[in-house]
Amino acid sequence: MSASSSSSSFAEALLSPRAVALVGASGDARKNTARPLRFMRKHGYSGALYPINPARAEILGERAYPSLLDLPGPVDHVFVMIPGSEVEAVLPACAEAGAKVVTVYSDGFGETGPEGQARQAALVAQARGLGLRLLGPNSIGLADLHTGGILSVNAAFEADTLISGDISMVSQSGSMMGSLLSRAAARGFGFAKSVSVGNESDISVGEVVDALVDDPHTKVILLFLETLRDAPTLARALSRARVQGKPVVAYKLGRSEQGDALAQSHTGAMAGNDAAVDAFLTAHGVMRVRHLETLFEIAPLASRYCRPLRVGAAEPDGAVARVAVITTTGGGAATVVDNLGLHGLAAVAPPTDFVRMIAQSGLVIRETPVIDLTLAASSAQYKLLLEHLLRADWCDAVLSVVGSSAQFHPDLAVKPLLEADKPQGKPLAVFLAPESPESLALLRAGGIAAFRTPEACADALSVFFAGAGQPPETGASVAWPAGLPQHGMLSEYESGTLFRSLGVPVAAGQLLAPDALHHTVPYPLVAKVCSPDLAHKTELGAVRVGVADEQALKIASLQMLEAVRRHAPTARIDGILVQPMESRLIELILGYRHDPLVGATVLLGAGGITAELSPDFALRLAPVSVEQAHEMILEVRQTRLIRGFRGLPEGDCDGLARAIAAFSTLACLESVRVEEAEINPLFVRADGVVAVDGLVRLA
Amino acid sequence: MSASSSSSSFAEALLSPRAVALVGASGDARKNTARPLRFMRKHGYSGALYPINPARAEILGERAYPSLLDLPGPVDHVFVMIPGSEVEAVLPACAEAGAKVVTVYSDGFGETGPEGQARQAALVAQARGLGLRLLGPNSIGLADLHTGGILSVNAAFEADTLISGDISMVSQSGSMMGSLLSRAAARGFGFAKSVSVGNESDISVGEVVDALVDDPHTKVILLFLETLRDAPTLARALSRARVQGKPVVAYKLGRSEQGDALAQSHTGAMAGNDAAVDAFLTAHGVMRVRHLETLFEIAPLASRYCRPLRVGAAEPDGAVARVAVITTTGGGAATVVDNLGLHGLAAVAPPTDFVRMIAQSGLVIRETPVIDLTLAASSAQYKLLLEHLLRADWCDAVLSVVGSSAQFHPDLAVKPLLEADKPQGKPLAVFLAPESPESLALLRAGGIAAFRTPEACADALSVFFAGAGQPPETGASVAWPAGLPQHGMLSEYESGTLFRSLGVPVAAGQLLAPDALHHTVPYPLVAKVCSPDLAHKTELGAVRVGVADEQALKIASLQMLEAVRRHAPTARIDGILVQPMESRLIELILGYRHDPLVGATVLLGAGGITAELSPDFALRLAPVSVEQAHEMILEVRQTRLIRGFRGLPEGDCDGLARAIAAFSTLACLESVRVEEAEINPLFVRADGVVAVDGLVRLA
Repeated sequence: MSASSSSSSFAEALLSPRAVALVGASGDARKNTARPLRFMRKHGYSGALYPINPARAEILGERAYPSLLDLPGPVDHVFVMIPGSEVEAVLPACAEAGAKVVTVYSDGFGETGPEGQARQAALVAQARGLGLRLLGPNSIGLADLHTGGILSVNAAFEADTLISGDISMVSQSGSMMGSLLSRAAARGFGFAKSVSVGNESDISVGEVVDALVDDPHTKVILLFLETLRDAPTLARALSRARVQGKPVVAYKLGRSEQGDALAQSHTGAMAGNDAAVDAFLTAHGVMRVRHLETLFEIAPLASRYCRPLRVGAAEPDGAVARVAVITTTGGGAATVVDNLGLHGLAAVAPPTDFVRMIAQSGLVIRETPVIDLTLAASSAQYKLLLEHLLRADWCDAVLSVVGSSAQFHPDLAVKPLLEADKPQGKPLAVFLAPESPESLALLRAGGIAAFRTPEACADALSVFFAGAGQPPETGASVAWPAGLPQHGMLSEYESGTLFRSLGVPVAAGQLLAPDALHHTVPYPLVAKVCSPDLAHKTELGAVRVGVADEQALKIASLQMLEAVRRHAPTARIDGILVQPMESRLIELILGYRHDPLVGATVLLGAGGITAELSPDFALRLAPVSVEQAHEMILEVRQTRLIRGFRGLPEGDCDGLARAIAAFSTLACLESVRVEEAEINPLFVRADGVVAVDGLVRLA
Repeated sequence: MSASSSSSSFAEALLSPRAVALVGASGDARKNTARPLRFMRKHGYSGALYPINPARAEILGERAYPSLLDLPGPVDHVFVMIPGSEVEAVLPACAEAGAKVVTVYSDGFGETGPEGQARQAALVAQARGLGLRLLGPNSIGLADLHTGGILSVNAAFEADTLISGDISMVSQSGSMMGSLLSRAAARGFGFAKSVSVGNESDISVGEVVDALVDDPHTKVILLFLETLRDAPTLARALSRARVQGKPVVAYKLGRSEQGDALAQSHTGAMAGNDAAVDAFLTAHGVMRVRHLETLFEIAPLASRYCRPLRVGAAEPDGAVARVAVITTTGGGAATVVDNLGLHGLAAVAPPTDFVRMIAQSGLVIRETPVIDLTLAASSAQYKLLLEHLLRADWCDAVLSVVGSSAQFHPDLAVKPLLEADKPQGKPLAVFLAPESPESLALLRAGGIAAFRTPEACADALSVFFAGAGQPPETGASVAWPAGLPQHGMLSEYESGTLFRSLGVPVAAGQLLAPDALHHTVPYPLVAKVCSPDLAHKTELGAVRVGVADEQALKIASLQMLEAVRRHAPTARIDGILVQPMESRLIELILGYRHDPLVGATVLLGAGGITAELSPDFALRLAPVSVEQAHEMILEVRQTRLIRGFRGLPEGDCDGLARAIAAFSTLACLESVRVEEAEINPLFVRADGVVAVDGLVRLA
């Protein structure tokens, strides 16, 4: 045959191929490798479908082809199910056959260790050379549920009927793709596309998301993530998804250190930092759910309603979403409200005016945080109340909790929910207290977000109202200060020079030669040994606080230099750094890190030794605006001490926010890449902030 | 008829009545009040059953009786479904008819406010006078699922088949009793008894638990709690349950402040304190689950395996349960392991020896925290591995996570789990990643704990391994120090005297007359105004630290007294209290409170202003042993600073534990009841502790 290229785009070839070949298709129906052909026939794939098997002329009753070079027409996607060592040999034929995308189920590549990674890199290079794109290897495949194009060995597609719909899923775990599909399908959730990315050697999650943004069947995109492999591509795709109004929801492993480590080892990925990934997801508007089933249960909420922008922080006294709760089971409603409270969402009582207005319709409700209708409302009254709540200005969302009627009278129980006129502006969520599969299905069919557990319901509402974050600023590039080294560690003095050049107030230090201690810093002062090689000066005896006069400075210098010589004989010594004694209300830490997964990040954290006892920090992608910096300040509990706490003096939060924003422009340096930087401590005063010590490590 | 008393015990009359009357039974099958008769006939109740309805001679095809005085034989339990105002009138006839227990479905009592509470109290008094015990009012009823004795209007019993089993449930929410029953039934969980206690006017949760301890059909007791109304009775019942080896599991509302407040208002209960209730439940060995469905899902784990005793605390570096994890889905296992990590449980890798031993059976496993068998094991190998894990000394529990086979080959997937020889010593828990109702049912039938969500699975394991606490010590009674007032507020000096008499080291203060400041405390010292009426001395200017000499003491005394006269003119002044300046490594708070729900409690908390930024305390029922006090110390994060943290000096934790235990004997005072007491601050030093300030409020 002649291999003329098909006319489909990359995205079409990837997600909705019109002609496919199955390399390594088995004729033994019990084998995994027989599945794709069975699945595609079972679910009505109408494109061209070519099983490839050099040993057999017929497979499961269909004509098989000895090789990709023998096909009667071009294909746009090849699914490869042969041993890993044989994949390389088949790629040229894939290109010959016209394929744009090759999905590799075969394993034995990056997930096995360094040798496998090398094999994988070679495979990608070969594919690129041939004009092919690779999904996998170690991918369980992908499916188009609208066309029956199921290039996957995933058992989930054994189901006799697959429900197509408007949700698409991208998963870094093949088996969890199937598990989630089966759970969602049992609840009546239909899917558009489902993609297992395997090792992401070439086509990454970001590229699949990008393709899904353009997929007309996809309205919501779900991600099951173990790590991030190509953050910039994903960031671009998420930005496009946001513009197109396609919500993205993620379940990411790694909320615990143990889970993070496991996900990394399981996937062979780089060492991860869940907090940084979380900052990335938030910044790019992704809703990260905590509960597995929330991933699909939240879809109607995510697709139907406009998510608020993230403003301020989740403070006990901060602005939180107000949820109006109506129920026919007080205990059932309380199970959700209790969990909402754990996430900072407030169940809110109807005001007097509202209660009076509702009374005019003959329904008596009380001014309590849960509107209990156990004995009262008719279906018409329930509907009317719901419609009023969905338009009331004193609540941000409506939660309906349904009791036993959901189990025994599904149609009656969900009727007012389905029939009520629901504006786009205010989210409605439903929790059904008893076992109520039929009611759940009716609500699902009606496009209403309904949850099986009170925990998932509260999870979804809290994630929704946590609000969409903002991507990092694209700040103007910043010049590297003349005279500073451009690689390795900077000394404290050099670090101070860099921070000052960015606009961060730094203690006015003077660097003195050890044998010529002339300076203009007033006594008492702080003296330190300045060296790019001393990370823990205090522990080494290389810091003296409260040096009283010139004589004391001389003695202190000699003693400190001697201590450094003894404990760190190879350290380069730039001199003695003298600084004025600085006062403070509180001390904080400012950190910067080029995270291996998500890139530049900035951290504001509590300072001092007690801060180590419990985590207290805010993390963002860098650079941040002054406004974002203010959000970070609100997130760090310790800053309450300078924000009008119990009559304590207030600190300069505006100055602090400016310093954070300035420090975060480390991400914008022109020619030098900062790997890590830290100001510790950063003193906050009533009239400004000052960096008292700091370090910088360059790439 | 003659009303001779039946021979059943109270517990039998309550839980398994042999003859019952239904007062207010309706002949209209659509009405709630028609349900009990229908339910009991449907589910085969074989005892005597008398519908009472003065208006009809026949109800649902059965003979009805005009009144309880017309029955052909005695009853032991009456279920009352008439308007609340008419209940009082029917009680004498209940007694006449021989009833021991009357369950009142009628509402309009304690849940409606003060007037209803008075009506309820009168009803209980009347019942007691008649020799009757009341369940309710406002109880949705109770059921014996082994006999079909369903004295309940709960719609959950509409089900055509009820599964009887060995789990019993007591619920403070009627509707949630039904919701939980329906959820559990759909999963194949069978119940013995199910009891809604309503307003608990007479028969409380504790009494029902006590009866269930003696019920031969009941193996596990589940509680759905909104509050605690009779803690002493429940404590006794829980103690008996522990002795009898019947595990008790609770889902209690109120983990968030919002949920706590809602549960209180919903039930009309006293203001609650969830932390105190939590301490009560822990002390009495109750497993408090966080997720609704864990309440029943944990039952096989709770009933089959012996729960460890609580030792030490959930410290990051403390002893945690080690879980061996085997799976056929890496991603699925990770969802549970991630959640286990959030609760401090460690997924543990098999040691080399174990891996070698398993290799001898032909199965290659790796030394990773999750043993991934995706491609490898036969059913026989899986079973063998499981049996070895269940006997290995390097793990405390085994978690099996099953992938797609659970969905498509339920029998194969769960076969090794069912067939493996499982010792009693080590818990086995199972999570099924895909939608797998059949596999869940098979495991349930096999008595294996299987969970529908990764969150509930981790919840159950972590609650199980949190360990059973210990009830408060029954310390010898302690005499009240001679000369101290026996009611109202004690002054700081008096409080110090009381604390010292219990064995708590207190700063050696001397109380001086304002006009005769002679003392033997060395300068510099601390001087304070001593008064039972000054709770906030520092804010009032009634404390001076670092008073240098006699002259300074005179001036300070005059100034302080003047400040008190100005700001608190009615305060009684006992004199000037002088104390030596005390040093410290850290400062803590010791609190004591007679909690309205659970009684005497003792609290150890972080001191100082920054401690208010995030909760950091340990709470126990009082009194506590020195050993329990050590546990409390480990639970308070701040104490890490005196337990070998980053080279900081270590504090006297033994002395601290002795002081906590001594302070907690406030619960054992002979004749005086302490409502609240506080030592704030308690200074901890390298060589002991010292109470620097304190207050006591007596009943």
